Amino acid sequence: MTSTGTAEKKEGKQQSKETSIHVPNPHLQNMREDVLYHLALGTGTHNLPALFGDIKFVCTGGSPLRMKAFIIYIAKELAIGNPGSDFPNLCAATDRYAMYKAGPVLALSHGIGMPSIAIMLHEVIKLLHHANCSNVVIIRMGTSGGIGLEPGSVVITKQAVNASFKPQLEQTVLGKSVFRNTDLDEKLADELLDCGKELHQFNTVIGNTLCTLDFYEGQARLDGAICSYTEDDKMKYLKAAHEAGVKNIEMESGTVAAMCNLTGIKGAVLCVTLLNRLQGDQITSSHEVLLEYEERPQKLVGHFIKKRLGKK
Amino acid sequence: MTSTGTAEKKEGKQQSKETSIHVPNPHLQNMREDVLYHLALGTGTHNLPALFGDIKFVCTGGSPLRMKAFIIYIAKELAIGNPGSDFPNLCAATDRYAMYKAGPVLALSHGIGMPSIAIMLHEVIKLLHHANCSNVVIIRMGTSGGIGLEPGSVVITKQAVNASFKPQLEQTVLGKSVFRNTDLDEKLADELLDCGKELHQFNTVIGNTLCTLDFYEGQARLDGAICSYTEDDKMKYLKAAHEAGVKNIEMESGTVAAMCNLTGIKGAVLCVTLLNRLQGDQITSSHEVLLEYEERPQKLVGHFIKKRLGKK
Repeated sequence: MTSTGTAEKKEGKQQSKETSIHVPNPHLQNMREDVLYHLALGTGTHNLPALFGDIKFVCTGGSPLRMKAFIIYIAKELAIGNPGSDFPNLCAATDRYAMYKAGPVLALSHGIGMPSIAIMLHEVIKLLHHANCSNVVIIRMGTSGGIGLEPGSVVITKQAVNASFKPQLEQTVLGKSVFRNTDLDEKLADELLDCGKELHQFNTVIGNTLCTLDFYEGQARLDGAICSYTEDDKMKYLKAAHEAGVKNIEMESGTVAAMCNLTGIKGAVLCVTLLNRLQGDQITSSHEVLLEYEERPQKLVGHFIKKRLGKK
Repeated sequence: MTSTGTAEKKEGKQQSKETSIHVPNPHLQNMREDVLYHLALGTGTHNLPALFGDIKFVCTGGSPLRMKAFIIYIAKELAIGNPGSDFPNLCAATDRYAMYKAGPVLALSHGIGMPSIAIMLHEVIKLLHHANCSNVVIIRMGTSGGIGLEPGSVVITKQAVNASFKPQLEQTVLGKSVFRNTDLDEKLADELLDCGKELHQFNTVIGNTLCTLDFYEGQARLDGAICSYTEDDKMKYLKAAHEAGVKNIEMESGTVAAMCNLTGIKGAVLCVTLLNRLQGDQITSSHEVLLEYEERPQKLVGHFIKKRLGKK
C-alpha cells in the first residue's frame, strides 16, 4: 500500500523504464483503508490485486455506453470470453462512472471535463497501485473539434496546451496556483501513429490539443447561451490556435498529461474530430456518420493493443 | 428565436421582475436551426414550445439515477400521472446527460464539475428560451463536504467562492480571463431556508460555498493519488475557509451562479454535507446513511415547489 519500494519519484517527466505504479502521496501508506468513493470500490471491501492485478491498458472515454461498446469490441478482437459474453459494470454501485474489464484491458468512462476525469484518474491510479499493477498505459479515446483538418481525422496529442497555447496546466492547490507539464509520451504517440498508418482507414496525425474548461465561450463558439464576441474575434482566435500548432480542441487532455507525468505512467490522448471549427460551431453530421467517427479511436487503440500483445 | 423583445439585458445582477428567458448572445437570432448537441434535442427536430413550454422549475444534480428518483418523488408529491407511471429519459439518444419531466418540473443530471454543468446549462437555457418559458428557477441539489457542520446538514449557497474565498468565477474567453459575479439570489435562498425550517427534519443553513475544479488537491484532501502538502497545511487552509464563512465545498456552484446572473434566471444551490472536512477526507458513512442524506435536498426542493404551486 506504500508509494515507496521500487517506484522512482519523478515530477514532470515520464520515467523511461516502466515499473510499478508510483503514487506521489506519502499519506497513503498511513491509511488503514482506502475508499475509492466515486468508483464504489475500496481496499477494505474488494481484493483489488485479484480483481485488477493483470491490467496493462486503461482505456477511457467520456461516455459510459461508448466504453461498454469498446470492451465488447476489444474482447472480440483479443478472443477473450465467448462471443456474446456480457461484461458487467465493475462499479455498478455508483452511476458516476462505468467500468468494464476484459483480460488486461480496463475500459472506463470519465464524464465531461478535467474536474470529472481528474477524480476518475486519482481513483483509478490508486486502484492500479493497490492492485500492484505494472507497465500500465492510460489512453483517452475521445471526440473533439478539429482545426484545419477534415472531419473524421484522428489527432494523437503531442502536448495539451492551455488557452494561451502553452503546454501547461494550472492547478490550484491550497488556494495557490501550480503549473504542470502537459507533454504526452512521445514514443507512445509515435507507436499509435504507426498503428493509424497501418490501419490506413482514416487520416491520423500527431499535433497539439487545446484543452479548455468550457465548450462554448472557452472554445470560441458563437452558439452558446452566452456570447460577447464577434465572428471576427472568434476566427482570429482559432487561426492563432492553428498557427500555434493546435490540431484539435477538447476538455480532458491537460489532466491526463499532467497526472501521467506526475505518476510516471505512460499516457496518450487520441480524439477524432467531429467538425472543422474553421468552418462552423455546430455538430450537424448525421447520427450514423458521428457513430462511425467515434469508433475510429477505438479501432486504432484496438490495433495497438493487439500489436503490444503480439496478436497482430 | 431572438434574444431581444421583452427580455432586458442584465449583466452580473439578477432581474427583479421575472420575465422570459434572456439569452445574451446576439448570434442566436441568425441561426436557422439550433442543435442542442449534448441533450440530443434541437429546434429543427423537436417542437420545443410544445414539449417544454410549461417548465417553471429546472432541478439538477450530478447523478442521472438521483434525477430519475427525484422526478418520481416530485410527481407523486404533485399528484402528476398515475402511481407507478414511468418517466422516460427525454434525451435518451445521448448518455451525456439524463432528463425527465413531470408537469412544470424538469429534472436533469449535470455530471461532475463546472465544465460538465456549464454545457448542460448553456443548452438547457437555450432550450427554455426556444420553448418560450417564463418565470423559471434553476436549482442545483447536490452533495458536498461540510466545514464545521454536522454531516447531513443542508447548505443553501449565498455566494459561490473561489479558492481565495472571493465570490467570483474566472472564465476564459478567447484566451483572456473575465471574472463573473457568483452571488446567488438572496430572496430565493431565504425562501428555501424557510422551507427547511418548516420541514424541521434536518439542519438547514445559508452560507458560502467553496467551488473547486478538483476534488482531491483542490479541496485539500490528503487521500488522492497526488499530494504534496502536510496535514498541518491542509488544516490551515480549511480553517481559513471556515473563517471566511465557507460552510461547504463542492464543484458546480460557481457556474450555476455566474450563468444565472448573466441570463437573469433566479438560481439556487443546495447541497447536503456528507462529512465534516475538519474531521477527515474519506466518505465512510454507510450506503444507507448516504442515501438518506442525498434525499434531503430533494425533500426540501419538493416542499418548495409544492408551496410555490399552492399545493401546501
